[in-house]
Amino acid sequence: MSAPKKVVLAYSGGLDTSIILKWLQTEYGCEVVTFTADLGQGEELEPAREKAIMLGIKPENIYIEDLREAFVRDYVNPMFRANTVYEGQYLLGTSIARPLISKRLVEIAEETGADAVAHGATGKGNDQVRFELACYALNPNIKVIAPWRLWDLTSRTRLLEFAEQNQIPVAKDKRGEAPFSVDANLLHTSSEGKVLEDPAEMAPDYVFQRTNNPEDAPDEAQIVEITFDKGDAVAIDGKAVSPAEMLTQLNELGKTHGIGRLDFVENRFVGMKSRGIYETPGGTILLEAHRGIEQITLDSGSGHLKDSLMPRYAELIYNGFWFSPEREMLQAAIDKSQELVSGTVRLKLYKGSVFCVGRWSENSLYSEAHVTFEDDAGAYDQKDAAGFINLNALRLKLLAARKRRLAK
Amino acid sequence: MSAPKKVVLAYSGGLDTSIILKWLQTEYGCEVVTFTADLGQGEELEPAREKAIMLGIKPENIYIEDLREAFVRDYVNPMFRANTVYEGQYLLGTSIARPLISKRLVEIAEETGADAVAHGATGKGNDQVRFELACYALNPNIKVIAPWRLWDLTSRTRLLEFAEQNQIPVAKDKRGEAPFSVDANLLHTSSEGKVLEDPAEMAPDYVFQRTNNPEDAPDEAQIVEITFDKGDAVAIDGKAVSPAEMLTQLNELGKTHGIGRLDFVENRFVGMKSRGIYETPGGTILLEAHRGIEQITLDSGSGHLKDSLMPRYAELIYNGFWFSPEREMLQAAIDKSQELVSGTVRLKLYKGSVFCVGRWSENSLYSEAHVTFEDDAGAYDQKDAAGFINLNALRLKLLAARKRRLAK
Amino acid sequence: MSAPKKVVLAYSGGLDTSIILKWLQTEYGCEVVTFTADLGQGEELEPAREKAIMLGIKPENIYIEDLREAFVRDYVNPMFRANTVYEGQYLLGTSIARPLISKRLVEIAEETGADAVAHGATGKGNDQVRFELACYALNPNIKVIAPWRLWDLTSRTRLLEFAEQNQIPVAKDKRGEAPFSVDANLLHTSSEGKVLEDPAEMAPDYVFQRTNNPEDAPDEAQIVEITFDKGDAVAIDGKAVSPAEMLTQLNELGKTHGIGRLDFVENRFVGMKSRGIYETPGGTILLEAHRGIEQITLDSGSGHLKDSLMPRYAELIYNGFWFSPEREMLQAAIDKSQELVSGTVRLKLYKGSVFCVGRWSENSLYSEAHVTFEDDAGAYDQKDAAGFINLNALRLKLLAARKRRLAK
Amino acid sequence: MSAPKKVVLAYSGGLDTSIILKWLQTEYGCEVVTFTADLGQGEELEPAREKAIMLGIKPENIYIEDLREAFVRDYVNPMFRANTVYEGQYLLGTSIARPLISKRLVEIAEETGADAVAHGATGKGNDQVRFELACYALNPNIKVIAPWRLWDLTSRTRLLEFAEQNQIPVAKDKRGEAPFSVDANLLHTSSEGKVLEDPAEMAPDYVFQRTNNPEDAPDEAQIVEITFDKGDAVAIDGKAVSPAEMLTQLNELGKTHGIGRLDFVENRFVGMKSRGIYETPGGTILLEAHRGIEQITLDSGSGHLKDSLMPRYAELIYNGFWFSPEREMLQAAIDKSQELVSGTVRLKLYKGSVFCVGRWSENSLYSEAHVTFEDDAGAYDQKDAAGFINLNALRLKLLAARKRRLAK
Repeated sequence: MSAPKKVVLAYSGGLDTSIILKWLQTEYGCEVVTFTADLGQGEELEPAREKAIMLGIKPENIYIEDLREAFVRDYVNPMFRANTVYEGQYLLGTSIARPLISKRLVEIAEETGADAVAHGATGKGNDQVRFELACYALNPNIKVIAPWRLWDLTSRTRLLEFAEQNQIPVAKDKRGEAPFSVDANLLHTSSEGKVLEDPAEMAPDYVFQRTNNPEDAPDEAQIVEITFDKGDAVAIDGKAVSPAEMLTQLNELGKTHGIGRLDFVENRFVGMKSRGIYETPGGTILLEAHRGIEQITLDSGSGHLKDSLMPRYAELIYNGFWFSPEREMLQAAIDKSQELVSGTVRLKLYKGSVFCVGRWSENSLYSEAHVTFEDDAGAYDQKDAAGFINLNALRLKLLAARKRRLAK
Repeated sequence: MSAPKKVVLAYSGGLDTSIILKWLQTEYGCEVVTFTADLGQGEELEPAREKAIMLGIKPENIYIEDLREAFVRDYVNPMFRANTVYEGQYLLGTSIARPLISKRLVEIAEETGADAVAHGATGKGNDQVRFELACYALNPNIKVIAPWRLWDLTSRTRLLEFAEQNQIPVAKDKRGEAPFSVDANLLHTSSEGKVLEDPAEMAPDYVFQRTNNPEDAPDEAQIVEITFDKGDAVAIDGKAVSPAEMLTQLNELGKTHGIGRLDFVENRFVGMKSRGIYETPGGTILLEAHRGIEQITLDSGSGHLKDSLMPRYAELIYNGFWFSPEREMLQAAIDKSQELVSGTVRLKLYKGSVFCVGRWSENSLYSEAHVTFEDDAGAYDQKDAAGFINLNALRLKLLAARKRRLAK
Repeated sequence: MSAPKKVVLAYSGGLDTSIILKWLQTEYGCEVVTFTADLGQGEELEPAREKAIMLGIKPENIYIEDLREAFVRDYVNPMFRANTVYEGQYLLGTSIARPLISKRLVEIAEETGADAVAHGATGKGNDQVRFELACYALNPNIKVIAPWRLWDLTSRTRLLEFAEQNQIPVAKDKRGEAPFSVDANLLHTSSEGKVLEDPAEMAPDYVFQRTNNPEDAPDEAQIVEITFDKGDAVAIDGKAVSPAEMLTQLNELGKTHGIGRLDFVENRFVGMKSRGIYETPGGTILLEAHRGIEQITLDSGSGHLKDSLMPRYAELIYNGFWFSPEREMLQAAIDKSQELVSGTVRLKLYKGSVFCVGRWSENSLYSEAHVTFEDDAGAYDQKDAAGFINLNALRLKLLAARKRRLAK
Repeated sequence: MSAPKKVVLAYSGGLDTSIILKWLQTEYGCEVVTFTADLGQGEELEPAREKAIMLGIKPENIYIEDLREAFVRDYVNPMFRANTVYEGQYLLGTSIARPLISKRLVEIAEETGADAVAHGATGKGNDQVRFELACYALNPNIKVIAPWRLWDLTSRTRLLEFAEQNQIPVAKDKRGEAPFSVDANLLHTSSEGKVLEDPAEMAPDYVFQRTNNPEDAPDEAQIVEITFDKGDAVAIDGKAVSPAEMLTQLNELGKTHGIGRLDFVENRFVGMKSRGIYETPGGTILLEAHRGIEQITLDSGSGHLKDSLMPRYAELIYNGFWFSPEREMLQAAIDKSQELVSGTVRLKLYKGSVFCVGRWSENSLYSEAHVTFEDDAGAYDQKDAAGFINLNALRLKLLAARKRRLAK
């Protein structure tokens, strides 16, 4: 790979990406464009602008964007239409944020005439894969620079030395090492590494940043109603809200009630296991709500097909294949199933749990006439069941008859 | 179907199956054998014997059996090896009990020379299908009699009249109709029908029989450790217990902490939706525990394959195909995956929730050496990631290049 | 079911459906509307009109329609986009014709104010299921009458008696029984029953009606080129043709070269096995051609996903669930994959075989630059393979290390 | 990776692996062990011994083994139990040979105290992946050396120079470049590269080495009978033969009749498409035969599950994951299904085609009594079909009723 001339850097304003910024300048002598996105991580963005200017970035090369609505509308919501969980439990909060960041990196590169993009993900994790696959899928000619795989700043000491040598200010609390590593966006906060590396040990309380401890949550349960339209949550307690506002409000509810904590050991795409603590307060509520509305608006054919496709869909997102034709094929199938997934669910939130306790819809397929223990006025002829069973049993009988025949 | 000469009846000793018993005698003039099984439903069985004798059953035709160990060992445990949930949430507590009852019905028929078996499931539900498919799969020549699909006792009034005409004692509290219908065994209690028929309405508190209300559960969390061997739970807090004893103890824990309640609308195999309230206290704990031990003992290849097979496996059990060759094929695959799923998990139980908060095993595949943020002493070469990404990206680049070529 | 007042009958004009027509009139005293469709079965339709009039049908109640274009465009082509085969080999020629016939039956019923439809499929086969599921999926209130399951005309003798009693003319060659039963449309001809009932016995030569015996086919191979657009065949040897014309021409080619014969034992949805002889000359060519064009225009992600969905998709069509939401979900995924499946394949036809021997497309993803054994000018860095392999191997190494550890 | 001390080389005795042998010696100064296996590629093995000795290999370091029986018994046969085809058509002849070679490489390394193995696969293909994943799965500490990814002998000229400099004799016909590249074993011969690189162009006749041109095959069809036991072919025309002998005889038959040619563009695991010409004469016959015997001995539940698992299973083999836990899980499921797949099929071979034209078995599930058009003596009650259809239709009716309700 020839040296890049102009690089768009995914820039948080923090110490690590500031070091990367400087390293790109010194290593390649290249122009750097910074891209800082608000995906709901809960940090102010303007300090990143000041810092970028201080590090010599031209004002016109500083991109700061609020992507929260696009994030929820175009990524989180489509994913939740599939009731997506990775390895049975993980709601993919980190994975789903990477495609959007990558998309903007590539677009800004094209707008600014940059020939490369750079990210701050390490060489052991999934995020490098997600960033790079997404970038390559959107622009086959882009260069992607992953400094953590390239440079020799392989210890905390060397990083801090580099920072000092390059006049990068280091906040006092960054001089020591963080006891674990954090990623956050509107959907979740993940924590991993260091104090969390032994999966036998309970995560210490101070790891949790986004949710109350269930023990500290209110002693009273709270009831909330969420309304869906075509598979997406659109109103809360009857009030229409935007996608990002919905997730923000659900996060607030989830935080209060200590909902959405997960202590998890997962299989990374790069082949190793890792342990993470995930907090997904709003997403956990959203998943239960979406399942609830599907219970009455999806028939078994759609529902069972969705269930069987979901693990593959989750794996694609986890592995970084959002912009792949097979993810798009699955999305087409999933979205087709959601056309009438509209209605309202009632949820009970209480000390770490969320339960669906009611659901109704104009599109409901639930037929009290058919299911009732009372007289059904002819909606269902119980005699049909005999024929249904007999023909479903036919092959089993033929198998059993063979077994008996052969046993003789 | 010609009239049966001798029928083995799945007999609970309750009013409904007593009426069936009498009806079989009067309708067919046939000999009746009663079979009453303890699957952990929490009722005494000896009253069933007295009642059967009172209804004219010969002592040698009365079978009363404690099947709890066989139930957990041969049905519940194999099912939990797959982390089985139906339609995302239901732990299949009713479904999994039917094959064992059917198996004993058929075996007793063969021992006693009976040509038929009979069950008390209605013509609208799944249980009729499960009983009959299982019976036919075990004996292709057996007759299965489903009185609810045959007789004209189609109202409560007529049932009670029949009981009176036939000297079947009716307990006072059975004269009125129950406000909902219940099925119970060691794995779960289900409630459905009548007051539960509107899925928009919250289930009244009195429906729950098997678990404390989370609000009434202890204010202190409890920690418990479960040890697995080859995918099955074998010890609790270090003490080895039998399969049924394990589930009994987990039920006790779950009950205390209000764990395992589910308000659910599901798709019945016979084509309609129904709403059920399920309480699966021990099973809910067991599922979380099993997932926890798999996290460190299964690799991603096994785990993802299991996840993708599970929905089909769950559907087979739900639909009554336990004794089918395809369920056995899936079981062979699942059991193969469990050979090294051994170790211990630590769980936190608190007010309706169960969380895995630690797991360890001699068979662990978790490698701190590989995943560590610290120096890994060469366990993992971060440069490998570049090649891994580049080749995974290759087809995406070719797709992107085509897109650009065609856009020109 | 109350008696129907007006029935739309799927009417071929042959003896069996003429008997049904009369039976409907006499059994129910109802008005009958006849519907006769040309799906390419190769029979004249006008005689059906004369016969219907002779049997007392009012001219305005006689519907005769050429559905060949709709059949190929809306049913055959979508199905071939998925490379659909049932149980490894069967091209679903009968199954795919039923939804369209059912759709027209229901539409004509609505146009003419009929409350029922009727078909001539027997109670042992799949076609009854396909007709009825399709009709009910399109109109939940329609009555479907299946005389073969209802009447007492259970032998050839009684059928002929009924015909005579009702002045239905019986062609001389219909007095004896046909040696096997035939279904035909533009996609295939199936033969089954009677002389074919022993699956050990070779089908006699006279069974084959639609294809030359390969031994009698030309001694010279023929080359043909088929062009696809978005997954559908649109031109043959460079000449654009309509969907039905395409299949007609491919049938002619397949017939000449003895292509598309299949001797098959399949599993019917109703639970039994049956043996059929299928001739699908054009369809067999089309399948090979479609696979050929996909080879260069689909990437592995799309292709492998399609392959994994296909068996389920085929099963749905075979079982009669064309008008189900899950078939539509799968179709959405499949159609998404076909957007760039355009280009041309060259085929060699010879004595029973069709081989793809060349394929090219503006949308080709084949990159000679990448694959070449010659110097690739840097398109592919072979060193990337080491990283790719190392990370794919990582979990296998961890598994192997565990195995060795435990063996000690 | 530190330099290897002793290397087991997969050695064919040909020019390329002789150069590798020498390169290993000169590059690493290491001891080389040669391993030459007969997998039915049709070449004499003893010349490899002479050549190895000439290149300085100690006699005790020369391993020459006939693995044909193990190859068919332990690899080919298990794979054919699944009716395995990759991307719809390819019988995986190359892929399936790699695990056995890898297994012996690793075993010989352990026997001889070698710390590394080496292979002659290039950096662009699948075989490097297959060799290396298999080796690492069997020994996590082994080093695998892939000279084609390491050395600078990147052109034919430089290879020949190296050969000359190192006294490696070069056969006259190897001085020019081969017009395509070949791999062969008992299952197939593959040809790819160079003259075959344009997928639009027909493969020239001289590429085919293993099968007659169908045009040159006998004008008379030949009938052959193959007997299966538990899914494996065990006798031909009534004569029991060993696994390798079976495939050898089928190859002879296939060659004669021009069966098993495939012109194919496939997706390599490393991300690019490649075009290959495959000849799999015996395997093509075996696949048709196995499908034929399954038609009567597998029920639909097993068969459909197998069909749905097969694409994933094929992908695993193609990608080199034979020794993975998920392949073993799938194998357990597949093998479970084969327990009663025993019986005989009759095949017709003619000018490029193989057709199953008859099949019979003591284990047959085909029931003439059920399927017959004649009187079935009560084996099947056609009235059952009504109930079967009504309950299968129920959800479709509920969906249709909703649609109508919403349309109002």
